[in-house]
Amino acid sequence: MTEAFSGLGRRLRLGVVGGGPGSFIGPMHRAAATLDGRFEIVGAVLSSDPARGAAAAEALGLPAYPDLAAMLATARLDAVAIMTPNDSHFALCSAALEAGVHVVCDKPLTNSLAEAHALESLARARNLVFCLTHGYAAYPMVRQARAMVAAGLLGDLRAVQVEYLQAGMSQRVEDGPLTKKQKWKFDTSRSGPSLVLGDIGTHAEHLARFVTGRRLEQISADLGALVPNRKVDDWCSALLRYEGGLRGTLTASQALAGTENVITLRVYGERGHLSWQHAANNFLVWAPHGEAPRTLSRGGPGLLPPAARLTRIAPGHPEGLLEAFANLYRDTAEAIAARLTGVPPDPLALEFATAADGVAGLAFIAAARESSRQHGAWTDVPR
Amino acid sequence: MTEAFSGLGRRLRLGVVGGGPGSFIGPMHRAAATLDGRFEIVGAVLSSDPARGAAAAEALGLPAYPDLAAMLATARLDAVAIMTPNDSHFALCSAALEAGVHVVCDKPLTNSLAEAHALESLARARNLVFCLTHGYAAYPMVRQARAMVAAGLLGDLRAVQVEYLQAGMSQRVEDGPLTKKQKWKFDTSRSGPSLVLGDIGTHAEHLARFVTGRRLEQISADLGALVPNRKVDDWCSALLRYEGGLRGTLTASQALAGTENVITLRVYGERGHLSWQHAANNFLVWAPHGEAPRTLSRGGPGLLPPAARLTRIAPGHPEGLLEAFANLYRDTAEAIAARLTGVPPDPLALEFATAADGVAGLAFIAAARESSRQHGAWTDVPR
Amino acid sequence: MTEAFSGLGRRLRLGVVGGGPGSFIGPMHRAAATLDGRFEIVGAVLSSDPARGAAAAEALGLPAYPDLAAMLATARLDAVAIMTPNDSHFALCSAALEAGVHVVCDKPLTNSLAEAHALESLARARNLVFCLTHGYAAYPMVRQARAMVAAGLLGDLRAVQVEYLQAGMSQRVEDGPLTKKQKWKFDTSRSGPSLVLGDIGTHAEHLARFVTGRRLEQISADLGALVPNRKVDDWCSALLRYEGGLRGTLTASQALAGTENVITLRVYGERGHLSWQHAANNFLVWAPHGEAPRTLSRGGPGLLPPAARLTRIAPGHPEGLLEAFANLYRDTAEAIAARLTGVPPDPLALEFATAADGVAGLAFIAAARESSRQHGAWTDVPR
Amino acid sequence: MTEAFSGLGRRLRLGVVGGGPGSFIGPMHRAAATLDGRFEIVGAVLSSDPARGAAAAEALGLPAYPDLAAMLATARLDAVAIMTPNDSHFALCSAALEAGVHVVCDKPLTNSLAEAHALESLARARNLVFCLTHGYAAYPMVRQARAMVAAGLLGDLRAVQVEYLQAGMSQRVEDGPLTKKQKWKFDTSRSGPSLVLGDIGTHAEHLARFVTGRRLEQISADLGALVPNRKVDDWCSALLRYEGGLRGTLTASQALAGTENVITLRVYGERGHLSWQHAANNFLVWAPHGEAPRTLSRGGPGLLPPAARLTRIAPGHPEGLLEAFANLYRDTAEAIAARLTGVPPDPLALEFATAADGVAGLAFIAAARESSRQHGAWTDVPR
Repeated sequence: MTEAFSGLGRRLRLGVVGGGPGSFIGPMHRAAATLDGRFEIVGAVLSSDPARGAAAAEALGLPAYPDLAAMLATARLDAVAIMTPNDSHFALCSAALEAGVHVVCDKPLTNSLAEAHALESLARARNLVFCLTHGYAAYPMVRQARAMVAAGLLGDLRAVQVEYLQAGMSQRVEDGPLTKKQKWKFDTSRSGPSLVLGDIGTHAEHLARFVTGRRLEQISADLGALVPNRKVDDWCSALLRYEGGLRGTLTASQALAGTENVITLRVYGERGHLSWQHAANNFLVWAPHGEAPRTLSRGGPGLLPPAARLTRIAPGHPEGLLEAFANLYRDTAEAIAARLTGVPPDPLALEFATAADGVAGLAFIAAARESSRQHGAWTDVPR
Repeated sequence: MTEAFSGLGRRLRLGVVGGGPGSFIGPMHRAAATLDGRFEIVGAVLSSDPARGAAAAEALGLPAYPDLAAMLATARLDAVAIMTPNDSHFALCSAALEAGVHVVCDKPLTNSLAEAHALESLARARNLVFCLTHGYAAYPMVRQARAMVAAGLLGDLRAVQVEYLQAGMSQRVEDGPLTKKQKWKFDTSRSGPSLVLGDIGTHAEHLARFVTGRRLEQISADLGALVPNRKVDDWCSALLRYEGGLRGTLTASQALAGTENVITLRVYGERGHLSWQHAANNFLVWAPHGEAPRTLSRGGPGLLPPAARLTRIAPGHPEGLLEAFANLYRDTAEAIAARLTGVPPDPLALEFATAADGVAGLAFIAAARESSRQHGAWTDVPR
Repeated sequence: MTEAFSGLGRRLRLGVVGGGPGSFIGPMHRAAATLDGRFEIVGAVLSSDPARGAAAAEALGLPAYPDLAAMLATARLDAVAIMTPNDSHFALCSAALEAGVHVVCDKPLTNSLAEAHALESLARARNLVFCLTHGYAAYPMVRQARAMVAAGLLGDLRAVQVEYLQAGMSQRVEDGPLTKKQKWKFDTSRSGPSLVLGDIGTHAEHLARFVTGRRLEQISADLGALVPNRKVDDWCSALLRYEGGLRGTLTASQALAGTENVITLRVYGERGHLSWQHAANNFLVWAPHGEAPRTLSRGGPGLLPPAARLTRIAPGHPEGLLEAFANLYRDTAEAIAARLTGVPPDPLALEFATAADGVAGLAFIAAARESSRQHGAWTDVPR
Repeated sequence: MTEAFSGLGRRLRLGVVGGGPGSFIGPMHRAAATLDGRFEIVGAVLSSDPARGAAAAEALGLPAYPDLAAMLATARLDAVAIMTPNDSHFALCSAALEAGVHVVCDKPLTNSLAEAHALESLARARNLVFCLTHGYAAYPMVRQARAMVAAGLLGDLRAVQVEYLQAGMSQRVEDGPLTKKQKWKFDTSRSGPSLVLGDIGTHAEHLARFVTGRRLEQISADLGALVPNRKVDDWCSALLRYEGGLRGTLTASQALAGTENVITLRVYGERGHLSWQHAANNFLVWAPHGEAPRTLSRGGPGLLPPAARLTRIAPGHPEGLLEAFANLYRDTAEAIAARLTGVPPDPLALEFATAADGVAGLAFIAAARESSRQHGAWTDVPR
């Protein structure tokens, strides 16, 4: 909804891989990428079956490509957006980076820590922008929380609580016929070593790390399945220790019947606390010690620059996840444009998650699994 | 985010008039119009000053036109979207309709009931689609409320309460230098006979009428200014009588300090009530008589078709005003495509407000003003 | 829960009239009267049938009296609490006042304005304490709202919205067998000229007047029945004008299915607004102009003396209606003790409603009825 | 507010120990004990200093005793209520039980598991009623949650989340002069081995166990201080395993600035979940799988007998902690009366916590401490 071209004089050329028919995240990516006019979608690989992919692309009015290699070869991409099953991220991202193309990729970055490190190194070596789509961290009021913490408004941090709760896997479906999506989710060779952590746990981990600005050092975790006889993880509860003595808790589950994508973040410091919940994403509760709690709102009074710059419409007019996702694309475009023009980007545009955050996410998963295997023992999170 | 072309095989060609630099509603219209891929913007008149308008259009990558006549003459428009000050709506809409172009126009439709009738007749005579942008009525959960009422889930309707409360005019600014927007707002020859009713009162009136499905028959109103020495209306409180014995209340004000665009709608029937508030637009509370109240959610269980079809992303992922506005454009596109192809539209696509609703809004304003002049006497709402 | 005797050295002797078996309000009065140890109940008239009353009193361990006259004659009362049907208030209060006994009486004070005036004069002439049980106004956070308004924290007042919504009469029960309570409620010779206004409307009127501190001068009202063929009023919506230009709205109804005793009060001034709702009685939202809204809590930071003195337990530990009702009794005791000892009472103890407020309530009812009869015409509220 | 004597024909004679001047819990106990007319307070030991205690008792109109022994010797008590610092509970309760007197005692039961076992055995051996004041579990809507779980409305239980968060110790006060209460709280020889667990952790543990009806089997805990250089625990986060495979999390802290006695309980089963929070104690959210969530209310539709019987006033009229506490006393009276009369008590009256729950609480504390010492290792909760 802000349509300037950031000094480039043209829209950036984006190719998309994945997000074909039936996908939830595909339309979200495509709408978010184009909302602010910084990208145009110039190529699409919408299925591993080229004919199916071509039909889907035509229905959307997009040029079709049989695979990423073909698209990289001919579509003159500035960037590629990858929204395929987790196990394909490494190869696709590698190919794009090797081709000198900037990358937007869904989380989790990869299915192993080693692959995550490799991608992060590659992106750095090639000096390419890499945006990992932790979209919840791009809500203005989450940015406000981070900025308030960074500004010292909470004083020394004391504790953080984060949770991500879903109901999608609360019923035992494994015995019946599975959808295509369920098939790869229940196949840990594709969805990764811990389904719940890959799907939503890393969102929670990132949210807490992003807002507190602290590295997660140790974890004591209980990982497993709430639903009887389930082979994949659908539950993780964890105790956390961050650098500087900050303690925390994290709960993530996809098997909590009756919940509706509950994401909550609470941060406590010596001088007060902040509380944010996804269902009321346009608001942030700030409870300063010894004062009545205040409900800050997107676009309202008291916003710090990182939140104010992401506010698109007037206060009292709700924004949703689409705008948060579009923030990722707008800022990625700003970062890419900066590389292309040599003009330094707005530092506030560089808050999106990157491959380094993907590494941190995989390190979190590895440590959580190890702690759970070690009967809850505190386990160092690898760097 | 749904990108099919509704059988047309091409995007509809849209021209925009108004919404230039500094406008809140301009970017909203442009983003909403293109979100679902049904329209492409092929021309823009962004200022009454052609040079200024051309610069603004260039910054957005849009073809500029000096005025609507020029754009109508050469841009081969399917539709035009009008987002200019209220007093210009009549002439602009008339010109577009006369040229055989479909219209999307901001409310209030016009500044007088006679003009509103004329536009409505013209659109009907020319068999053109006319969408009046009552965007709040395009939220999925407002559509759900209407559908639940229509399905008889509340039984006989008993009462409706609607309010629209803002703070934007709570301080006396008239004595200082005015912004361009304030200038035309405080000039009743431009903003219309009752500022508060034109700006927000007709939204409230439409919302109540839309959800209840009842015609407003009589009104007893108190209209005036809360801020001392103000010459324009910033307050309207009204008692309402609808056809079929339904009673109601309406309060609209732009001078209530500390409010943040509060819109609430409550409908009561023999068998229960519904409650919706803009700040939580993704939810609708349904309190059936003798049962515990339920909180329905966009995308969640219990949605009726009119709400389900407007749900874009998964439950628990918030949508905002942009999607509501985009619903108007998507359905307008469906209605236009139906005329172009001869294929009947989805009846559920025809719930957007039209010129006839604009007439009803102006009739409401006229009756409210008359009742207020008559010291609160119940006054018939003209047809 | 504060048990000092306010310098009297003894508990005050209270007689109760009404509130026998099946009553909701009877146990509330008795518990509230004794909660703080300022009163002991030394006599009870629990039924118009002496035998029935004696049995009920015995079950409660209370001395029984056949009627008020007998109790006044022998029970050495300091005060009497009257919780009988509305039409009996005048005679009972008169008898008590004539006997030199202080009075606690349920609202509405009487069924006519003339009787209300007579009681008010009598109480004043005899220099007796008269507490009218507008219990909702005795919540700490309602007192906080009043104190904040009085301290000028809202600046000049601009508008007030009050509502009291119930479901108890949402179904047509008149055709079936009626309970004893329904019988006198549906008999306007007993329940008074307007059921909804006597039952709950005067609560709403008092709440708005109490918090704003402004006299209600004019009213434009719609009074009637939402339920078809109902003979008594179950709906009142009204537009209000207070002294000093303050405008307002009031809605009261007992026929709104699905509501659960909804009481809301919102006050707007030049510098912000306050919002209170009964369902969250321990909280008060304060939205200062240009700042983020704050949620004040009972016992929490920022309380002014009138609220702080009524806070019994620690913040974060909910209080309910019982404590509010007990506040009335504690302050009534303080006022009585002041008369008995000659030591001036704490001025903050004198905020409970009195016979004068009962007069204001009856005047409000009279004006609302007259306006409704006059088709909504603005009508002066008699003094 | 229900004043029958449960077939005894007289009020039970209660002595109180503790709760003198400045105490928060003392007035709560005294008001709760007498609210329903089942107890009369016939003796008080309000200070360890007899003169100070006598003065305090006189101010309350209560007979004073220098110590419990004296009161037991001469006051003909049916029961004694103990609200003294934790380290005195064992001796006082033992003395009362040895004297054949029923006991109401504040939590934690004792400061060691061994003492807790001893008291539990003694109470059982003497066939005396022992009520441990876990007041939060006596809210009607908590009882409703338990009853719904027991009735199978959630299906198989999957997870439970409980938290108790306070701000009272968020600031470092240890270096300044301490209040009398702070002195014994910071002295672990008096307040017990883990301050946070003794003060509030056992409330959380009990709440989860009470509602789920499951025994806690294993715990992995992180116990310590959030405030730098603090010698006592002010933070506990724990992972839980209950019998039958139920998993859970518990967080308790007194050092979270800006919180106001936050207590939340969420229980998840195969068929839905329940969510309760102390700040809205009159409500319980029930989200059945695949249906819209419902907000049950105290006194409203859908209540099961354990909640319905504890509802004192009409729905929509808030009750608070006083009533919850009074529920404990009313049911304790019912249990005592049953022993005195030989008439079996209402089984629903026997849901208050007992010495056995005190044992469970101390076992939880012991296991949490052991796990924390063992670096988070899963630790069996002793029986």
